Formats: sequence, C-alpha cells, structure tokens
Amino acid sequence: MTPVCAIVFGMEKNSADICPPVKVVEWTGQAADGWLRLLDQTKLPAETTFLDCRDTQSVWDAIGRLVVRGAPAIGVAAGYGMVVAAQSADDGEGFLPALKKSGEYLISSRPTAVNLAWAVGRMMTRAENALAKGLAAPTVREGLLDEARAIHAEDERMCGAIGNIAADIVRGCSGVLTHCNAGALATAGIGTATAGMYVAHAGGHKFRVYCDETRPLLQGSRLTAWELVQAGIETIVIVDNMAAQVMREDRVQMVIVGADRIAANGDAANKIGTYGLAIAAKRHGIPFYVAAPYSTFDLSLASGDEIPIEQRDGLEIARGFGRTTAPDGAGIYNPAFDVTPADLITAIITDRGIIEPVAASAVRKVIEG
Amino acid sequence: MTPVCAIVFGMEKNSADICPPVKVVEWTGQAADGWLRLLDQTKLPAETTFLDCRDTQSVWDAIGRLVVRGAPAIGVAAGYGMVVAAQSADDGEGFLPALKKSGEYLISSRPTAVNLAWAVGRMMTRAENALAKGLAAPTVREGLLDEARAIHAEDERMCGAIGNIAADIVRGCSGVLTHCNAGALATAGIGTATAGMYVAHAGGHKFRVYCDETRPLLQGSRLTAWELVQAGIETIVIVDNMAAQVMREDRVQMVIVGADRIAANGDAANKIGTYGLAIAAKRHGIPFYVAAPYSTFDLSLASGDEIPIEQRDGLEIARGFGRTTAPDGAGIYNPAFDVTPADLITAIITDRGIIEPVAASAVRKVIEG
Repeated sequence: MTPVCAIVFGMEKNSADICPPVKVVEWTGQAADGWLRLLDQTKLPAETTFLDCRDTQSVWDAIGRLVVRGAPAIGVAAGYGMVVAAQSADDGEGFLPALKKSGEYLISSRPTAVNLAWAVGRMMTRAENALAKGLAAPTVREGLLDEARAIHAEDERMCGAIGNIAADIVRGCSGVLTHCNAGALATAGIGTATAGMYVAHAGGHKFRVYCDETRPLLQGSRLTAWELVQAGIETIVIVDNMAAQVMREDRVQMVIVGADRIAANGDAANKIGTYGLAIAAKRHGIPFYVAAPYSTFDLSLASGDEIPIEQRDGLEIARGFGRTTAPDGAGIYNPAFDVTPADLITAIITDRGIIEPVAASAVRKVIEG
Repeated sequence: MTPVCAIVFGMEKNSADICPPVKVVEWTGQAADGWLRLLDQTKLPAETTFLDCRDTQSVWDAIGRLVVRGAPAIGVAAGYGMVVAAQSADDGEGFLPALKKSGEYLISSRPTAVNLAWAVGRMMTRAENALAKGLAAPTVREGLLDEARAIHAEDERMCGAIGNIAADIVRGCSGVLTHCNAGALATAGIGTATAGMYVAHAGGHKFRVYCDETRPLLQGSRLTAWELVQAGIETIVIVDNMAAQVMREDRVQMVIVGADRIAANGDAANKIGTYGLAIAAKRHGIPFYVAAPYSTFDLSLASGDEIPIEQRDGLEIARGFGRTTAPDGAGIYNPAFDVTPADLITAIITDRGIIEPVAASAVRKVIEG
C-alpha cells in the first residue's frame, strides 16, 4: 500500500503516476522503528527543510506550529503520528489505553481540524479490531502503518481524480489564475486546485500560472508559487489587487481555487479574496472553477449564508511582516474566509465528478451518487 | 497669502476653514532666513517626525527619497525649495543663473513628476519678471516666497472645492471605502479622495472609513489610515482582497478614490487595484466616485486605452517587507496602475464641479468650462 510514484513531468501520463513536486508527509522505515518526516512549511519559501518526528510530542508540535497544514495533509500526518505513538505504547494490557491517550493528545494540537480527529479515530478503530482478534502488539503496529498508508493513498487518489477532470480544462488555457494554497502542500498528493495543473504539465502542456500572493498570510506567494516552481511550471506572483488587471489583459483563461466548505446549493467558502476574484472573472467572461474533494461538502447547509466566517487577529494584518504597517488607533477587520455564491461558479470539480452548472440538484447527484 | 487655518473638527464649517490633520509642507520664518519643513512620510506610521530643509541639496534629497510624495504636495514643496535655493544665490548678476541651476537640479530629483517641473518653472518666471523690473535680490526673494505661498494656497483651495462637493455624498453614508492614498498627505490641503471625509467630519457627521492597505507599497494602511486617525475619523484597515466581502456585508455605501490621469471619455488611471474595486462596487450597486483636480485630466487622450501603465520592480512584491515572500524562480508581475473604464464610475468630483454621468461631453463641459 506504499504510494509508489516517479517524476514523470513532460510525458503523457495518467494522474495516478504523477508525484507531487515534494513529499509533504512521508513514513521512513518500519512500523517498529520508523519515523514521520514532514516538509517544514513554516520555512518556505526561503528554506526547504524536513522535520523528523520520532515521538508523539514532536508530531503534536509540528501540527500545532503549522509545519504541516491543509486538512488532507494533516489527516495523513495524524495517521502516521499514531504509528509513532504506538511505538512507545507498552506491549501488554496498557497498549490500547496508551494509544488512546496519545490520540487525544494529538487531536488537541489543532482542535478544529476535522480531518485530524477523523484520522485518529480511524487508527484507533484499526488498533481495537486487531487487539480484539488477539493479535500481538508488534503485529498491531504493522497494521497501524498499513492503515496510515491507506489514508495516504486515498488522499493521493482523491487528488488524482480531481486532476484528471481539471487537466482537460487546463489544456485549453495558456494562463491560469489561482488564489491561496489548495496545492500539493495542503494534501499528501498533487493538491486540489493545483491537481489539474500538474496533470496537464506532466502531459507536456505549456502554460503559465498567476498566483495571488493572498494577504494577509501570503499562502499564494510563499506556498503555491513555491510548489509550482519546484515542478517546473511557469509561475508568476501578483498581489491580490492585480487579478482584475491580469484578466483584462487576457493573460488568463480560467480561474481555479480550492474550498473550505461547500453548501448544498454550491455556494463555496474559501480563503478571503476568492469572492472578489469570482466577481472579476464574471465581468471578463472567464470561467471560474472550484476544486474540492467530496468531503468538503456540507449538505446540511442549504446555502452559503449558513457558513460561519472565522474572524482572525488584526495583528496578522497590522504587524504581519514583523513591521508596523498600520497605525495605532486604526481598527482592523480580518475575516479569514468569504463565500462565493453558486451563480459565480462555472463548475465544481470533485473526486466524484464535475458539478456543472452549479445547482442543488447537480450537487446532490454527484456527491450522493 | 500665508494659509491660515485652525482645527475645527466637530463644528459646522465650510471647507475653507478646515485644516489637514497634519502639516505636510510648511515654510518657517522669513524669505531670507527661513526654511522648508516637511513631514517625513517614509517614517509613517511608526514615527511622526519632521525634516527641515535649509539648502537645495536637502530639498532634492527629500523629494527623491519620498519624504514628501503625491503630485500636488511635491509641487508645493518645490515652490518653497526654490525659496531655499534663492537664499544661497549671490545678490549680483549671478542670481538668476544660480537659481536656474538649482531649479534644474530640483527637477532631477523625480524626473517624471509633472507638478515638480511646473512649480519650478512658475517660480523662475516670477524671479525673471521681478529682476526685469529692476528689483533687488532681497525683494525678489520675498516675491518668491509669496509665489510659493500662492501655489500652496491654490492647492488648499483645490482640495476644499472637491471636499465641498464630496461631503454632500459622504453625509449620506455610514461607511466609506478608499484605496491607496489620495489624502492630505499627497497634497498641501485636505487631499482629494479624503477631502469630502474631512469636511463631513468637521460638520459633525459620524461615519467609518475602510482603507484598503494597498499592496505592494501599503499607502492605504501606512498613510491614509494614519492621517484619518490623526483627524479623529473612525478608520478600519483591511487587506485589498477583503473589499468585496466588506461590500457584501453592507458596511460601505460609497467608494471614493483619487486618480493619476483621466482621459477625455472619463476613463481613469489610478493605483493598481482600483479597477477590481470598481467591478465589485458595480456588482453590489454601490456608487463609485473618483476625486481629482482638473489638472489630472489629459484631454489629448481619447480613452484609457491610451494611458501607459508603469511596470515596477518585482522586488517590491517579493522582498517588500524585508523578508522573502516569494520563491526564487517565480516571475513577478507588478503593474503600478490600472484603468477604470468610465462605465464603472458613478461620478468624477473635480475642483471645477462634478461630472455625472461620466461621458466625454460632460468631461469637456466641466473641465473646459
């Protein structure tokens, strides 16, 4: 179940063969004595360094400090984190309680990350079932590594499925615009919004990607531009307010972004700035795509109006670069997300198929099958 | 001719009585031994310091380093700069050649700033006329100070005239959005885009101004937010990509910005990001105003398509905060301006009247009288 892939850029290949430009999350060695290796995303784009996690505390610390970030990637890291935890659990009756305690500890590193709790729960179930069958601890540890690798492989497949659909659209474009990072760095595969770019690039298609820098935290310039450059894709960084001008100059023929949550009618919450981008794309007649796995859909919400918008600390804006960029006495408004209404979205590309045009009936058909 | 004003915020006053929140450009003392005092805008918003220029070299340096910036403010500073230059010119026959040499030197501090060359030329004409009348050098120096003060007062009146028109619109709003700095800091008066805010505020109207931070150089958060806070106006800083969300949440009822150049049909070039803002305002049915003096109009250009767009160094984006925010290997696209087409502009507010709706015939009528 180990993901096997090779760099194949420049050849016509199916997405299943395409590696991400860098290994964001990786297991090294055997279940009993191996370790979790993470790309340290806090150091990007200045440094490419990896962090080896050999105990539960260091996994907790890495997730908490955003060494690894992005819901799918966090889930995969947590899976391997439980293999690390199992190494220090005694072989006897204390094994399961110790593992449970470690799992709860790991979940506390980022309490609101749904994939984190989900992955820990799945690993616990695997351990419980194995012990119920009377398997010995060393065998249980091997089973846990298999389970973590299964989570990893599923994430890769999800990215690949999105990439196969999106690549057909990218192939028709000489310029693509994206916002924030819904890339390989946020998954264990080739990303969501970026997946079609990697597949089209691997097939030899030449195009250029414009990356909004994405203030205040600059995920677009620090992360998306970095991973595209690693892959050899031509990448241009712009500040967010230049996107409309780039569209006016006919430099891009599509916009593609990720999503944090999608309502039953197709309204999509994503990083702040996505909504303005969708309005500008509409004005210029440029198709606007959202790429997201089916797990992003929350069909319990009728529309985007029900999606809560997280408000973040104003210091991210006023002191975000280690300098004072706004005066004392000014207020700061810092919503982390906005909601793009379905009428501005050309199509939603999921691992279960494409939703086009975007409407509640089409969402239900693709997501619920 | 010395501009006389007093802080009158909170009282119902005409714009002629309203001071800018801080003195950006000021002459101290007499013609023979006084000096030019400039607010050092390079230190904002962290420090409020003033720079005294007592010789031509320090005026040149201050303009070149952007201690003073904004076309109208540069013109006023250059006027006073010529008074400083006249102090070191010998009283005899060498007076005019020395002054001319200083003028050419000052113009070289920012070669493309039209108001700089215009102000120097006006000061030279004053000196030539005075010498032709046989006036002595000390009297010519006094005349030059009068001329510089006249340029200063004209700039104040221009701002006031725009402010009186714009204030009527601001009074109908609880929230206003602006971009970049077309404020008091860019003029010797109460600014252009900000003028209506200062007049409405002085009249006791309560409202809130949302300032786009305006990447890459952050003039919105560093300068506009700073001057509005000084004046006691409620100010909220946002990053540029939040503007559409702010509109969607009904937080603003108008957008007002400055302009760098306006074509005969009303298409307006302004700081990059203005165009996207205008598109978002249109989507939300929010009026979009441009405020600019008549000198901003270039009626030799039929439309905005003829306005050249300055491209600036990508390092402003990739290294703009003293940190590496974009990876090596990525290209950077950094247009300094964009053009907002007349169809997205509700009205253009000038010191000669309001142009509404925006069309070539209305532009001609107001600007050419």
